[in-house]
Amino acid sequence: MVGIGLIGAGRIGKLHASTIRRAQNCRLVAVYDEQRASAETLTSIVGGTVCDHVDALIDNPAVDAVFVCSPTDTHVDMVTLSARAGKAVFCEKPIDLDIARVLHCVSVLEQHPVPFAMGFHRRFDPHHREMYDEIRRGRIGQIEQIHFVSRDPAPPPLAYIQRSGGIFRDMMIHDLDQCRFILGEELDSLFATGSVLVDPQIGTSGDFDTVTATLWTSTGVSCTIQNSRRCSYGFDQRIEVFGSKGSIALGNVPLTQTCAFGDTGLVKPTLPRHFPQRYHDAYDRQLAAFVDTVTKGTVLCATALDGLWALVLADAAERSVRTGQLVRIADRTSPYDRSDARRK
Amino acid sequence: MVGIGLIGAGRIGKLHASTIRRAQNCRLVAVYDEQRASAETLTSIVGGTVCDHVDALIDNPAVDAVFVCSPTDTHVDMVTLSARAGKAVFCEKPIDLDIARVLHCVSVLEQHPVPFAMGFHRRFDPHHREMYDEIRRGRIGQIEQIHFVSRDPAPPPLAYIQRSGGIFRDMMIHDLDQCRFILGEELDSLFATGSVLVDPQIGTSGDFDTVTATLWTSTGVSCTIQNSRRCSYGFDQRIEVFGSKGSIALGNVPLTQTCAFGDTGLVKPTLPRHFPQRYHDAYDRQLAAFVDTVTKGTVLCATALDGLWALVLADAAERSVRTGQLVRIADRTSPYDRSDARRK
Amino acid sequence: MVGIGLIGAGRIGKLHASTIRRAQNCRLVAVYDEQRASAETLTSIVGGTVCDHVDALIDNPAVDAVFVCSPTDTHVDMVTLSARAGKAVFCEKPIDLDIARVLHCVSVLEQHPVPFAMGFHRRFDPHHREMYDEIRRGRIGQIEQIHFVSRDPAPPPLAYIQRSGGIFRDMMIHDLDQCRFILGEELDSLFATGSVLVDPQIGTSGDFDTVTATLWTSTGVSCTIQNSRRCSYGFDQRIEVFGSKGSIALGNVPLTQTCAFGDTGLVKPTLPRHFPQRYHDAYDRQLAAFVDTVTKGTVLCATALDGLWALVLADAAERSVRTGQLVRIADRTSPYDRSDARRK
Amino acid sequence: MVGIGLIGAGRIGKLHASTIRRAQNCRLVAVYDEQRASAETLTSIVGGTVCDHVDALIDNPAVDAVFVCSPTDTHVDMVTLSARAGKAVFCEKPIDLDIARVLHCVSVLEQHPVPFAMGFHRRFDPHHREMYDEIRRGRIGQIEQIHFVSRDPAPPPLAYIQRSGGIFRDMMIHDLDQCRFILGEELDSLFATGSVLVDPQIGTSGDFDTVTATLWTSTGVSCTIQNSRRCSYGFDQRIEVFGSKGSIALGNVPLTQTCAFGDTGLVKPTLPRHFPQRYHDAYDRQLAAFVDTVTKGTVLCATALDGLWALVLADAAERSVRTGQLVRIADRTSPYDRSDARRK
Repeated sequence: MVGIGLIGAGRIGKLHASTIRRAQNCRLVAVYDEQRASAETLTSIVGGTVCDHVDALIDNPAVDAVFVCSPTDTHVDMVTLSARAGKAVFCEKPIDLDIARVLHCVSVLEQHPVPFAMGFHRRFDPHHREMYDEIRRGRIGQIEQIHFVSRDPAPPPLAYIQRSGGIFRDMMIHDLDQCRFILGEELDSLFATGSVLVDPQIGTSGDFDTVTATLWTSTGVSCTIQNSRRCSYGFDQRIEVFGSKGSIALGNVPLTQTCAFGDTGLVKPTLPRHFPQRYHDAYDRQLAAFVDTVTKGTVLCATALDGLWALVLADAAERSVRTGQLVRIADRTSPYDRSDARRK
Repeated sequence: MVGIGLIGAGRIGKLHASTIRRAQNCRLVAVYDEQRASAETLTSIVGGTVCDHVDALIDNPAVDAVFVCSPTDTHVDMVTLSARAGKAVFCEKPIDLDIARVLHCVSVLEQHPVPFAMGFHRRFDPHHREMYDEIRRGRIGQIEQIHFVSRDPAPPPLAYIQRSGGIFRDMMIHDLDQCRFILGEELDSLFATGSVLVDPQIGTSGDFDTVTATLWTSTGVSCTIQNSRRCSYGFDQRIEVFGSKGSIALGNVPLTQTCAFGDTGLVKPTLPRHFPQRYHDAYDRQLAAFVDTVTKGTVLCATALDGLWALVLADAAERSVRTGQLVRIADRTSPYDRSDARRK
Repeated sequence: MVGIGLIGAGRIGKLHASTIRRAQNCRLVAVYDEQRASAETLTSIVGGTVCDHVDALIDNPAVDAVFVCSPTDTHVDMVTLSARAGKAVFCEKPIDLDIARVLHCVSVLEQHPVPFAMGFHRRFDPHHREMYDEIRRGRIGQIEQIHFVSRDPAPPPLAYIQRSGGIFRDMMIHDLDQCRFILGEELDSLFATGSVLVDPQIGTSGDFDTVTATLWTSTGVSCTIQNSRRCSYGFDQRIEVFGSKGSIALGNVPLTQTCAFGDTGLVKPTLPRHFPQRYHDAYDRQLAAFVDTVTKGTVLCATALDGLWALVLADAAERSVRTGQLVRIADRTSPYDRSDARRK
Repeated sequence: MVGIGLIGAGRIGKLHASTIRRAQNCRLVAVYDEQRASAETLTSIVGGTVCDHVDALIDNPAVDAVFVCSPTDTHVDMVTLSARAGKAVFCEKPIDLDIARVLHCVSVLEQHPVPFAMGFHRRFDPHHREMYDEIRRGRIGQIEQIHFVSRDPAPPPLAYIQRSGGIFRDMMIHDLDQCRFILGEELDSLFATGSVLVDPQIGTSGDFDTVTATLWTSTGVSCTIQNSRRCSYGFDQRIEVFGSKGSIALGNVPLTQTCAFGDTGLVKPTLPRHFPQRYHDAYDRQLAAFVDTVTKGTVLCATALDGLWALVLADAAERSVRTGQLVRIADRTSPYDRSDARRK
């Protein structure tokens, strides 16, 4: 039974807490939040004790693993404290919006090699996983072209956009991680476009609401991504992978398997309107994989390097839109690739 | 190039005439209709000459085959005249509403064995045919259960219902023929129900508008059929055949392969609203098969005995509804099974 | 927090125990099973104490509600004991295989009107529920025709079939309950057929493995049901309800929303192979509804009368197959309709 | 009845000839081909007389319209001769591979404004047209993102690739035309990638077999295109248009509406393997629209300027791949925009 300490009792912290409650081999031990009231509300529902300080939570001997769900700019500090204390860490994405700080965090984890997982839950969605497994089993031969569609039902608050690092870092980053995960190969270059079609205020905040990216590997595999901050029909999440022997498509997951037929034709129900609903099972499975990482040492979850790569790609997309140029992803001898750097 | 004489220039006659116009190895030579004006309108569009008498049409040496599309109660006479003249015959279903007269017609065709085909066009629908072929190729193993859905968009005129012999003889008869065709085995018994839910006038005409039937063979294969005279979403035509190794379903054929996604969900287009639209290709293929029957002697189309069997089943369904009893289909020594009768 | 005592730690008992573990407002307090070891295994995983006697469980003041998951022939006794003790009861279907004993149980519950629910979990499946709600909202107008398909992946052990009361009572009973639930109206008559196509041993056990039924109401609504003990492609569970303004279909729920395209066409994944997988969410929601019944007095679950009706229909189907006759469901003045009986 | 003269009796000429044979208000009058034998074979099947010279065909008074289906490098000459003779012209795409020659052809047509149509048959596919009409009716609001997938079952002969101008000019050109057609707005810029993943010989011929393009308008609407020369599951032709109020998707058109269910899941049939099969109806409708253009003066088909624009976009895609740069489409005052040029 893995004891979990949760730092951050906001939206995503609550989601992880209720995931922990459903699980069989871990339990919520302690919660810390700057707003003590938030921590109290949470523990009153799902159990665990409230800590007054982060240190108390991390030092609690019943805490085997720390969930870092605090604001992004505190992630590196929380990970560092936890790793130094020898605690396993689950860190919500992104580690940080600044590449240098992420790199620092990767270094800390090299020095303190505790079990660590990044929160890229889509890798654990059973639908995604089935697609991934089928590809690995050779169902479609060699991958040649990928297409991602990710669209949110409605834009987040402007305040969120101003802090999130923009659509490439808060939204496309999931597609970028999935792209690497599916490919099993690093990307070479990318080209991105951005528009403001949904809400002019998003534009005046310096962000885009409608973006595309094309990415490709040095072996000629290409990937196109379409993102939008607004989608009238719900949370639109699709992937299609085309290969030498076939194709595999991951469609949207309807709320129910009912179809109505009437004088306007066939009508299927709308899609989930929020990611917690769509990715409910993915969170359960991600937690189970993390618990395995902690207890058995298996590495099934996204690593800190995965987090770094996804951020590098998101930064590259942003740069491409700003410059109107294709951006070559830094090659393997770049400063942030520690494994290579050491070999030199 | 097979020369065709068409008797009857009404709705179904026109449909066959335009099918003949599209075909490459037959042509419309002559047309007869009691209403000479109808015949003239038809020939002005699709060619051929108008005949003043049926005899002139049948005796025309350029006429190789006669299409009998006149009113049902004239079918037997037209078939008889044509067969005696040695002409191939295509006869719209049913041969007659009276079993004894159909039997007489079968006898005539035994004495004058001209190429003959019944108009059961669904057997030639490419979707049906693919299902049929897959079953014959063993895709689903042994057939165990079948389910038919046939629903018309809207009831026909009451005048039609009063002459047609009722819903079992004008509508379910197609499902009954398909059922025999798919099974490749005769039915043993059936049980049917009937209601008037669509239009009370249909009830006062002595017919039903909503019916079901369950049929089964002596080997234990069962089939359920649902029919309705009215369907809000178009012409509903589906079959599902379940077998020991799998199932094969024939769904509705949408007008186009577009899907719209909006705030009410996914919407697919409505279905064809008329059988000529849905079965356009089936009529082309039935004609091609009939031309092959005439020129090559192959027997691909439904025979007169098939027409007899379908009517016997429709009559049995009617009797089941009227009596509230299951009806056993007459066994193979019954008077209308000529092949057996002769063996005795 | 509702305290639950579980009688019976077999397959279905375990399923309910793990459902209880996932729920937030109830907990497993005590478990009784004739095989004490089974009860111990269960409590070691999901908590609760083991009782040596049923009485100890029922009398436990922490037990607010009793789950009756013991063998069918003990259901009436367990319900009676629990109801007399004033405990809420959840009883797995069927209450009993004998109508008279079920009727006795209904009487006991009239005298001791504790919160009571029958285990007809399909009523709570979110897909079924969406269909039900759409119908109630008038989406398809008046119901006219219904079609059910229920097929199990593989036959149960022969020992099960010999005790279960046969395919009508252990399998079709779910469709029969759903049919009444969807209609909101009682059935008038039915006609059923049965064959042995899957396994001859099922036939020598006196049961069928492939059955159909047609049911209808006095208002002319009809329903067809197809059942099989074996289905090569998984657990086949579909309903289609056709009405005056449209139709609503509940399709199978695929394991994932992936599609593979290759040289054999489009391939979608197989279906769930077991009911616990397909109806996982239904069990959660049924439990939540039962807890509401206990704590708020709402009656959302199937009642004992619903259990009685379903059994009456299953018995009628059996009788129809045995006699080859349609069977009229006993009218409202029949002995087992207590409410009417009292009015006389 | 429009009389048609056909220049070129090769693959595409034959296809148009059989389309003409099916039509009701036009007929094939004369055929010319450099290989007289090809012309003779064609007329023996579908009628018409063989001409020894192009002039004889064009000057034939029974020829109202000329179909230019000869090799691409003769198109401009044939169009010029026909237009000068006052004959309506249907010209297969592309007019020419050289922008300057296309421009010259546009000039000729300005001076001799005969009815003219480019062969962009996809605009007339009933599925495409339904999508187009729904968009124009406002179903999805303002267009924001488009995605095209076009993949051929197998690469054409290398000899074809060497003459065709490459994948952007022989394949993506259809998507580029459709993109402009759907948008109703000109494109501003594009970025393309290209790989050789299917056949290295395609690479040594100087072409690519796997390409993508991203295009966008000055108003911020973006479009992604994925093309491949090889697709294991058939002729893959899909479009999805996402807008402010919804999305509309045009899926592949299966050969039949059958589905097989078995132990490997649900299997739907493969797709058409050739464009004549997939776009059979599109050719019929394109011809009908052209006949209307000839007889009624309506302009429903693609114009010569449409042909020019599509080629400009294909050239730009080629340039983008070769340079690794985004390519801005020449603005409206460019030399090839005659309408603007004249205004200066």
